[in-house]
Amino acid sequence: MAVLLSTKASTMEDWRDALLEVDPSLEIRLFPEAGNPAEIEAAVCWTAHDLGELRRYPNLKLLVSMGAGVDHLMRPPGPPPGVPVARLVDERLTQGMTEWVLLNVLRFHRQDPEYRAQQAARVWNELPAPDTARRRIGILGLGALGGDAARALVALGFPVMGWSRRPKQVPGVEAFHGEDGLAAMLARSDILVCLLPLTPETRGLLNADRLALLPRGAYLLNSARGGHMVAADVLAALDSGHLAGAALDVFEPEPLPPEHRLWAHPQVVLTPHAASITIPRSAAPQVVENIHRARAGLAPNNQVDLTAGY
Amino acid sequence: MAVLLSTKASTMEDWRDALLEVDPSLEIRLFPEAGNPAEIEAAVCWTAHDLGELRRYPNLKLLVSMGAGVDHLMRPPGPPPGVPVARLVDERLTQGMTEWVLLNVLRFHRQDPEYRAQQAARVWNELPAPDTARRRIGILGLGALGGDAARALVALGFPVMGWSRRPKQVPGVEAFHGEDGLAAMLARSDILVCLLPLTPETRGLLNADRLALLPRGAYLLNSARGGHMVAADVLAALDSGHLAGAALDVFEPEPLPPEHRLWAHPQVVLTPHAASITIPRSAAPQVVENIHRARAGLAPNNQVDLTAGY
Repeated sequence: MAVLLSTKASTMEDWRDALLEVDPSLEIRLFPEAGNPAEIEAAVCWTAHDLGELRRYPNLKLLVSMGAGVDHLMRPPGPPPGVPVARLVDERLTQGMTEWVLLNVLRFHRQDPEYRAQQAARVWNELPAPDTARRRIGILGLGALGGDAARALVALGFPVMGWSRRPKQVPGVEAFHGEDGLAAMLARSDILVCLLPLTPETRGLLNADRLALLPRGAYLLNSARGGHMVAADVLAALDSGHLAGAALDVFEPEPLPPEHRLWAHPQVVLTPHAASITIPRSAAPQVVENIHRARAGLAPNNQVDLTAGY
Repeated sequence: MAVLLSTKASTMEDWRDALLEVDPSLEIRLFPEAGNPAEIEAAVCWTAHDLGELRRYPNLKLLVSMGAGVDHLMRPPGPPPGVPVARLVDERLTQGMTEWVLLNVLRFHRQDPEYRAQQAARVWNELPAPDTARRRIGILGLGALGGDAARALVALGFPVMGWSRRPKQVPGVEAFHGEDGLAAMLARSDILVCLLPLTPETRGLLNADRLALLPRGAYLLNSARGGHMVAADVLAALDSGHLAGAALDVFEPEPLPPEHRLWAHPQVVLTPHAASITIPRSAAPQVVENIHRARAGLAPNNQVDLTAGY
């Protein structure tokens, strides 16, 4: 039996090497060189893979996302019926995301864009001291990523709120849920951080109506998925000054087309889906463990709830 | 008896209001309106005050710095003989400094200057993932400020080293001291953070010889005092590429003259002595407590060792 990998060529080789380092007995095949379809027991895929194609493997027992998000595996026609889907919950992935969130929260909190502009103009001018205890952070999503970012921000002394679909508790974080909770949290979020899974319910959540609920002069961070935001509405909120700035790592489509207005908006800090990068060597042990679990007839760790979509 | 305040006019009024909020019975005088010199029991001063002038007050029992640093009170002729000197150890000051350090460590660690340049050129290109576990941070100074920054960096997963004049232990931090220890730590510091007090021993510590000990491509952060670095040597190290970048908050003189090369160096991130700003309301309780201690004949809290200079 064999494990099929599918992502861009250079990354696929890193994945192969990392998986073989954990279990040298694995037979790894790199898409599109799948060999005999009946021999594929597990597929480890990233965003570009054609989901219909996976139905060619009659003995497929496991589908693994190469990242924390699985929205790419939920597109029509979805994963093959009866095949469990697992996502990565990786300390390195989480750590990278928390670093990206902290960098951008601190960037806006510490008036860094204003200080960069002053430096360019050779202006020596101390701005009013930022008050950490009064800079309210709202986090959308309190899963592995949102929970970790929340803990790091609490440790720095920020008042932190968090919103999730179902009620959740994170120590030191004021928790909200449901549509009413969303409106209540947005109204008090000086910096809003989106770390939600992308599902039909969360697609387009960051639209004009929701952004209008934020305090004037709020900042937006999105490192979840481009599909969470309506880019035209974010641009309009930036143009009007309702949003004072945005740090954005994810877009629809990706790469962001060169002519898109977000590239050059003076209040936008852009990274190219680089907030958190899966490191095959870091993720390999859990993938191998899930392959072994599938062979033993066990459900994978970090299994995706296909009804909820994450 | 009265308390003399001396700094720029607007800040002095904030200090007066903050002190009176803690102890409305205080009589506060704003320099140069000192009134009867024999009535001044305590002086709370910032950097511009003439130290010789303080000898006019025969009953002065306490001298307080308006910041964490006291080097400005050690200039000739120094504080009046026999008058104890106290510095501020303030949670808000410490928090502000730690935020500045985290922002700039993460800025360089996360390749933010490169991503800003790519955004300006509309280039979508994911850079190699930074490896937190291998980005070694060296902190010069393990006092209230250095210790707090060290703890925050340890919590994020960085390997952290710290150097101090005398041996000190901070949990999770590899400690160095003395001249040999300094060389050993510099040789392994991918990001060097200066949070030392400025004394005759530490003046000019960041010179060409010391910078040459850093790994090629290291980053320098200085939010201590401008006198710690030889600006021409830092510029030369940046020009040669030995230093990949520097975040600088302090200079000699301040304000940094508009024609200085540091303003426009592409690898320099500059803030105008704004890393940590004393908030009078936050600092007032400890100043009032020290005035009460002086009246009771007690040594002040956070008293400066005039021999060590900090």
